[in-house]
Amino acid sequence: MKMTAQEITAFLAAEFPQVDGEFVVEQADEDAIVIRLPVVDRHLRPGGTVSGPSMFALADLAFYVAVLANVGPKALAVTTNCNIDFMRKPAAGRDLLGNATVLKLGRNLIVGDVMIFSEGMDKPVARASLTYSVLK
Amino acid sequence: MKMTAQEITAFLAAEFPQVDGEFVVEQADEDAIVIRLPVVDRHLRPGGTVSGPSMFALADLAFYVAVLANVGPKALAVTTNCNIDFMRKPAAGRDLLGNATVLKLGRNLIVGDVMIFSEGMDKPVARASLTYSVLK
Amino acid sequence: MKMTAQEITAFLAAEFPQVDGEFVVEQADEDAIVIRLPVVDRHLRPGGTVSGPSMFALADLAFYVAVLANVGPKALAVTTNCNIDFMRKPAAGRDLLGNATVLKLGRNLIVGDVMIFSEGMDKPVARASLTYSVLK
Amino acid sequence: MKMTAQEITAFLAAEFPQVDGEFVVEQADEDAIVIRLPVVDRHLRPGGTVSGPSMFALADLAFYVAVLANVGPKALAVTTNCNIDFMRKPAAGRDLLGNATVLKLGRNLIVGDVMIFSEGMDKPVARASLTYSVLK
Repeated sequence: MKMTAQEITAFLAAEFPQVDGEFVVEQADEDAIVIRLPVVDRHLRPGGTVSGPSMFALADLAFYVAVLANVGPKALAVTTNCNIDFMRKPAAGRDLLGNATVLKLGRNLIVGDVMIFSEGMDKPVARASLTYSVLK
Repeated sequence: MKMTAQEITAFLAAEFPQVDGEFVVEQADEDAIVIRLPVVDRHLRPGGTVSGPSMFALADLAFYVAVLANVGPKALAVTTNCNIDFMRKPAAGRDLLGNATVLKLGRNLIVGDVMIFSEGMDKPVARASLTYSVLK
Repeated sequence: MKMTAQEITAFLAAEFPQVDGEFVVEQADEDAIVIRLPVVDRHLRPGGTVSGPSMFALADLAFYVAVLANVGPKALAVTTNCNIDFMRKPAAGRDLLGNATVLKLGRNLIVGDVMIFSEGMDKPVARASLTYSVLK
Repeated sequence: MKMTAQEITAFLAAEFPQVDGEFVVEQADEDAIVIRLPVVDRHLRPGGTVSGPSMFALADLAFYVAVLANVGPKALAVTTNCNIDFMRKPAAGRDLLGNATVLKLGRNLIVGDVMIFSEGMDKPVARASLTYSVLK
């Protein structure tokens, strides 16, 4: 890995102050990239479910962290596609965890998946596929 | 149409207080469903571009409004899939407009598209395809 | 447009002999790009419906023709993503028509849509979003 | 599992004579669902790559086999969405293997993934996400 969880956290705080404090980089190593979304009121929809945009934001950030871990802070990339399946209602009062995998690290395109879990549930609540375009 | 723009606005304010004030239902009739996202600081990313989650939220809300306009407030539906292509950088300091179309209004699934424009640009900044599952 | 329907047909026959005779370029001009799939037995599934792979093939070819019409025969591009919603059962014994639109013609990525119709039905049977990566 | 690889093969031969002989059910048990596409000339494109429609057909069939293995031959389901990322060029002269996973087995929707490999390569050539709607 080109960056540790600690380095990624510092990089995000400096470059993306808007998301600072929103997410926690739980793990970023050879075994897994895991991002936590501490769920608070503004993420909720009627019925206590987490909103789609909050899950999208988690998926996008988790994949961005996976890209940083793989290519380092020099890389600039923008999301060009996201396909997300919402499969189950998240558990009430639980944080969400996004587990990101890089499937292709190309010169032009980076492709991967993020599985989103409610903490403590073993089946995913959502699964996202993302494509980033590498800026040159 | 089963609901007017005014009725939809009142319905959203009552049922989704979290998004109240975030979006404006510009038009909801036979010709078009158009939702405005008044862009403010919290929607922005470094470089002045509108964040992906903000565009996702606009697409999801615009399609929900299209569903309400077509089937009325009794219908309950949840987003099961969203596929979004981010194609151009939104213009700085401009609101976003989401233009929703229902392609299939089935008993089980509702499918459609949302084209997202920066106000004043004629080419779309993003295009989303959404599927809603009808709750029974 | 950089190529006419006739030029595209000749180009496909020379470069893609595998699909020669499978599809007809009905129209390729400023107004529309329309490709016909003459439906024969090998495209069918039990119940008389056209198979998913046949509709995928039509979507992919229709978008490729749209790219050729827009950029000419020099351009080399490969499909990197296709998202397809199957919405209605095609009418029995009818050809399929694919209507392609280019939404973004970038230096790296070309993005667009294909609506697929059973000839004579006014609602689409499927809608595909495609991304091509431009080879350099 | 509700059906073995042998039972699924017999079911497909009886119900889908069009695809009989096209694919081989390599494995269908608790550990994995694996389908082989023996690649022959008609699957190829110029340059020796396997065509997109052939990979789509493999993904769709592999996921259908996963559904059969999980719910048995009584279930009727139709593909409503497929999102496919083409990531690498398949190796010349190698069969393709599709590895299917069911992520959600709902009463209305069945959602899952298929990873496609060239035999002998450890990185996937394509990844598909599929949704089936359960007919009632």
